[in-house]
Amino acid sequence: PGKKVLIVYAHQEPKSFNGSLLKIAVEELSKQGCSVTVSDLYAMHFEPRATRNDIVGHLHNSEAFNYGVETWEAYKRGGLSKDLIEEQKKVQEADLLIFQFPLFWFNMPAILKGWMDRVLVQGFAYDLSKAYDGGLLQGKLSLFSFTTGGSQEMYSKEAISGDIRYILWPMQHGIMHFCGVKVLEPHICYAPENVSEEKRKEMLTAWTQRLKTLWKEEPIDCSPDWYFK
Amino acid sequence: PGKKVLIVYAHQEPKSFNGSLLKIAVEELSKQGCSVTVSDLYAMHFEPRATRNDIVGHLHNSEAFNYGVETWEAYKRGGLSKDLIEEQKKVQEADLLIFQFPLFWFNMPAILKGWMDRVLVQGFAYDLSKAYDGGLLQGKLSLFSFTTGGSQEMYSKEAISGDIRYILWPMQHGIMHFCGVKVLEPHICYAPENVSEEKRKEMLTAWTQRLKTLWKEEPIDCSPDWYFK
Repeated sequence: PGKKVLIVYAHQEPKSFNGSLLKIAVEELSKQGCSVTVSDLYAMHFEPRATRNDIVGHLHNSEAFNYGVETWEAYKRGGLSKDLIEEQKKVQEADLLIFQFPLFWFNMPAILKGWMDRVLVQGFAYDLSKAYDGGLLQGKLSLFSFTTGGSQEMYSKEAISGDIRYILWPMQHGIMHFCGVKVLEPHICYAPENVSEEKRKEMLTAWTQRLKTLWKEEPIDCSPDWYFK
Repeated sequence: PGKKVLIVYAHQEPKSFNGSLLKIAVEELSKQGCSVTVSDLYAMHFEPRATRNDIVGHLHNSEAFNYGVETWEAYKRGGLSKDLIEEQKKVQEADLLIFQFPLFWFNMPAILKGWMDRVLVQGFAYDLSKAYDGGLLQGKLSLFSFTTGGSQEMYSKEAISGDIRYILWPMQHGIMHFCGVKVLEPHICYAPENVSEEKRKEMLTAWTQRLKTLWKEEPIDCSPDWYFK
């Protein structure tokens, strides 16, 4: 109650299974008294490309464009583009970040990767010696909630697609942990397109149930052992 | 000689270190008699967002938009957008795909992820039971060539960022291997922005040298052992 949640959502279709998961999260968390903000990336036509347009006004070095340096400098002088400042404000205010998306190619869809690339700039999310447990977004929680095309059996250690945790390393450790954000257990709905209507309903109910006690959960130990042990 | 190479390049600045690596690859491979095509994603303003715009004409199911189903159906009837058909043609003709990019957040930049998401659609790159060694792009080679911000020491098994191979799993195995493409050893230039001019020159020379004997290389064994052993 009173907690602030930002849901960054990457699906084109409100009637999709991802759309249902989003709706459940908004309803359940609001019911708990949380303040919920949604960044609906496709609906916002969110720009995933990291370009010179992200910097308002002059460049630090216009001879050779370096995105990392330019956004860092622009952040410091308040010179990032309006869409980035707005997203950063939402992140800053949030106690919990939920990422809701369908897994595309063992990873998040490009539009969501673009949100990570452009919003989490140096100076805002991390800094020279401020990374991992010292990252600038300390005190926040994150949760990756996604659907897969493949079945759970395909994502086991001995199966061809390997343990699903292998896929989580770049997202959870490489991005969230790097920024100092604690990571809750991921929420994975396997192959909702290939299961029965009954099974789909069970998956939706499981998400509602999990959200009811979400604030009591302990973050995972985001170290190689969790992913590769 | 006579081989066809597609370089998918994702950097905004031709004068960057990635730009130099691209230039070297184009020159060296052309010198060998290869035919080299470059998809310069930022220069092309390549669209990374997977949307309804990728399908020309009617939708298979306009009630609820499903990107995977719609692009599969559109592919079969030749109804994908022009930019995708052009990229698919380049892929189809290539013997070798080189991806040249700076590592962003333990992964490729969003613009390149968008290329993967949109170009490698079902029916073209894989199909129902045609994945991994049975993928539809069999007979091709791929090579991920990228720069990092962090040093080589930071990407070791015992260090905080973990083995660099952990990061390669989703890209090399989850995308290329999934499509039936063999994977050559990655080419990694660590922290070019933080080393001496001399060291940078050495890295460029090493790339030229590697390219001279590239066609004699054996693909890696793209299984969990290579990544997590």
